[in-house]
Amino acid sequence: MFFKVKTTEEVLELVQGFQPVGEEIVTLDRAFGRVLSREIVSPEDLPGFPRTSVDGYAIRAKDSFGATESLPALLEIAGEVGMGEIPAMTVAPGQAVRIATGGMVPKGADGVVMVEYCHLMDQTTVEVSRAISPQENVIQPDDDFKKGTAVLQEGWRLRSQDVGVLAGLGVTEVAVHRKPRVAIISTGDEVIPVQDKPKPGQVRDINTYTLCAFCTEEGAEPIPLGLCRDDFEQLRDMVVKGLETADTVWISGGSSVGTRDLTLKVFESIEGTELLVHGISISPGKPTIIARRAATGIFGLPGHTASAMVVAEVFLAPFLARLGGETNFLERMQNKVAAKLSRNIESASGRDDFIRVRLIRKEGQWIAEPIFGKSGLISTLVEADGLLRIDRNTEGLYQGQEVEVMRFKKA
Amino acid sequence: MFFKVKTTEEVLELVQGFQPVGEEIVTLDRAFGRVLSREIVSPEDLPGFPRTSVDGYAIRAKDSFGATESLPALLEIAGEVGMGEIPAMTVAPGQAVRIATGGMVPKGADGVVMVEYCHLMDQTTVEVSRAISPQENVIQPDDDFKKGTAVLQEGWRLRSQDVGVLAGLGVTEVAVHRKPRVAIISTGDEVIPVQDKPKPGQVRDINTYTLCAFCTEEGAEPIPLGLCRDDFEQLRDMVVKGLETADTVWISGGSSVGTRDLTLKVFESIEGTELLVHGISISPGKPTIIARRAATGIFGLPGHTASAMVVAEVFLAPFLARLGGETNFLERMQNKVAAKLSRNIESASGRDDFIRVRLIRKEGQWIAEPIFGKSGLISTLVEADGLLRIDRNTEGLYQGQEVEVMRFKKA
Repeated sequence: MFFKVKTTEEVLELVQGFQPVGEEIVTLDRAFGRVLSREIVSPEDLPGFPRTSVDGYAIRAKDSFGATESLPALLEIAGEVGMGEIPAMTVAPGQAVRIATGGMVPKGADGVVMVEYCHLMDQTTVEVSRAISPQENVIQPDDDFKKGTAVLQEGWRLRSQDVGVLAGLGVTEVAVHRKPRVAIISTGDEVIPVQDKPKPGQVRDINTYTLCAFCTEEGAEPIPLGLCRDDFEQLRDMVVKGLETADTVWISGGSSVGTRDLTLKVFESIEGTELLVHGISISPGKPTIIARRAATGIFGLPGHTASAMVVAEVFLAPFLARLGGETNFLERMQNKVAAKLSRNIESASGRDDFIRVRLIRKEGQWIAEPIFGKSGLISTLVEADGLLRIDRNTEGLYQGQEVEVMRFKKA
Repeated sequence: MFFKVKTTEEVLELVQGFQPVGEEIVTLDRAFGRVLSREIVSPEDLPGFPRTSVDGYAIRAKDSFGATESLPALLEIAGEVGMGEIPAMTVAPGQAVRIATGGMVPKGADGVVMVEYCHLMDQTTVEVSRAISPQENVIQPDDDFKKGTAVLQEGWRLRSQDVGVLAGLGVTEVAVHRKPRVAIISTGDEVIPVQDKPKPGQVRDINTYTLCAFCTEEGAEPIPLGLCRDDFEQLRDMVVKGLETADTVWISGGSSVGTRDLTLKVFESIEGTELLVHGISISPGKPTIIARRAATGIFGLPGHTASAMVVAEVFLAPFLARLGGETNFLERMQNKVAAKLSRNIESASGRDDFIRVRLIRKEGQWIAEPIFGKSGLISTLVEADGLLRIDRNTEGLYQGQEVEVMRFKKA
C-alpha cells in the first residue's frame, strides 16, 4: 500500500481526472455565480443601433471643424431625438439635433457634440465652440458585441457584470453546469450531535458544519448524511447511500488508525471501488484516503477539523471546481498574497507543510505570522487568514523571507 | 448645488454614517456567510477534557525518560480507552494504556507516546523507544477555548471554519445582522424588458440584473421593482414603494441631464429627503446622486452599466457592508493585487479615474493592462479583472510602474 502515498501534485492531477457532473438550464435571475456549460455567442449586434454616450447635439462632424470658443460654428436646430425612438429626421449640413445619453443618432449625423460645448442662441440656433471628429461620442451598432462572436467561454463562473451582458443580449435562460452534490458523513463513537451536551470524552460534530459551509462556499450542494458510529455495517450503509444520492462522498473522522482501517474495509467491500490514494505527503492532512467508484470520488478525510479543512482548501476546492465544470478555477486559486515572514519556520523534508498564518498589514506590506498550536485545535484555524505552503524539498523558511500566502476566502 | 460634488473619500465617509439595519436569529446550518450581531463568548471549556491528538499509549511521561531505541522502557499494558468514554482506569507508574486519536487521556497519565515509537512485546508489555515530555500530544481541557473568553467579534462575517467553532461550542442559533434589502429601479423610456426584442433606439434592461447580482454577491437581498418610464409620477410612486419595502433604494438610469433632473425633482417631492451628494469627482460615475430620508439612503446611479458598476464596487459595496453590520469589511476590501502597468495612462486631474484592467500573469508577476473603450460599453467590464484607481492629484501613470489593482470578486 505504501506506493499509494501521493504528493500534493499527484493528488491535484488525480482530481482533474474526474468529470463535470452534468448540465441544467437556469433562468437569468438565478445565473449569478453559476458556471457556463456552453459558450455564449452573441445572437445579435449590440447595441444594434448608433447610440450616443453623451448629452448634446447630433451633427455632421465636418460642420464643427475649426470651431473654437472665439469662433464658434452656428447650427440650425432641426429637432430633438426622443429616448427609445427612431428619429424621424435626417440631419442636413448646417443642422443640429438635440439628443440625450443613450439616444439613437439620427441619419445624416456622424457625431455628437457634448452639451458643455453648445450655447443656445435662440430657439432655433446653437453655437458650437469645439470641433469633434467623425464618430465622436457615438457607439456603433456592433461596438459592444458583434453578432456571432464569442462573448463568454464554457466553464466561466458568472460575475455580476457577466449576468448583465447576458441580459443585454436577451439571453433569458442559461445552460450551466449542475452544482456537484456532496454527501457528508461524520464518523466516530466520540462524536455527538451539536445540540447535545458532551460528557467527558465526547465532542460535538464540527466537521459536518465546516464541510457543509465549505461546499456552499465553493458552489456545491452539501447533503449531510449525519453521524456514524465506528461500525462497519453502519458506515457501509451510509457510504452506499451517499453513492446513490450524491456526486461525491466525504467521510470525516479517519485520523486514528482504527477508523482509517474501517474506512478502507468499507471501500474494499463495495464492488467496483478502486483505492487511489492512501496517505498524502502533507502536514496536516496526511491520513487522507481517496477512492473511486465509476465517476464518483470517495474521500476519507482526517477527523481533526483543522486537518480536514487544509485538505479541503488544497484538494477539495479544485476537485469541486472540476466536478462543477469551472475552467477558470486555477486563476481564481491564484488569490495569493505576497507577504514577509515574521519568523523562522522549520519544516521536515519529504512532505509539504501547510502552515496557518495570520496576515498583518504593516507599513504598506503584508506580514505573515505563523500560528502554531497543537494539532487537533480549531482555534488556530479561526485565527488564521490563510495557508503558507512549505515545499517538501525545503527544510524551512527564514524570518523576513518573501512568501506567498493562499488567502482564505472571506465568505 | 455645486458644493454637493464630493470626492471619493467624502462619499466613503458619508456612507459610513448609515446604521446597520437590524438583527435576526438563524440556525447554525444557515449561518455561513452571515455577519455576527453579537460577540460570541465561549460558554464552556473546549474540548472540556484532556484529549490525545495521536494514536498511541497514555503513560506517565517520567516513565519514558531516557528511553531510546537501544534502551527502550518496558511498560505494562493496563487496558484501552474506548472512544467517547470516560476511562475507568488510572495509569499507575510503569503502566501504559492504549488510546486512539481523540480519546480521553486517563487519570494518572500526563502524556501520550505515539504508536510509531511503541513495540508490542506480548499481550501485556509494550516497549517505548522514545522519551516524551509531560503533556506531549495531549490537548488540555481549555486549550482550544476557555470558558468566558471571546471567540468571534461582533461584525465578523462567518467563514466555514468559524461555523465549525460555533458547532464545537454547541451554539445552534446565532444572532446575525439582517441582510440589507435593496429596492432596485431601472429608468429610461428606451429601456425594455430583457425578454423583449429591442427596436432601433431601445436597449434591454441590463442594470436590474447586474445590480441584483451585485447585491447577492455582497450579502444583501435585492428587490427588483422593475422598469420605470422617464415620468415624474411613476418614478415617485416607485421610489415611495422602495422606501416602504427596503433599507435602501437604487435608481439607475440617470446619465442624461433630463433623467437626473427628474430624479432630483422626485427626491425634492418626498418629504424629509435630504440631498447629500450631487455628483462625485470620479470617472466613470460622476453623475451619481445620493440622498437620505431618515435611515434610508437613496442612490441615483448612472445609466451606463459600466459606470454604475464602478460606483457599486467603490461605494455601494462599503455601504452595504455598513448596513449589514460588517466591521471587518475594510480588510476584505484590501483584496488588492500588486501589478506592473503595461503602458502609460493619462488622467485628468481633479477627479479620481477608475480604469478597468485585465490582469495577466507573466514570469511570476501580475501585469495590469488597461482596457479602453467608449464609455457606455459593457464588453470592457466583462474583459476586466479589476479596477485601478488613479488619484485626482496624479496626472497619469507610467508603463512599468507598480500599481495596486482592486480585484473583482470571482463570484
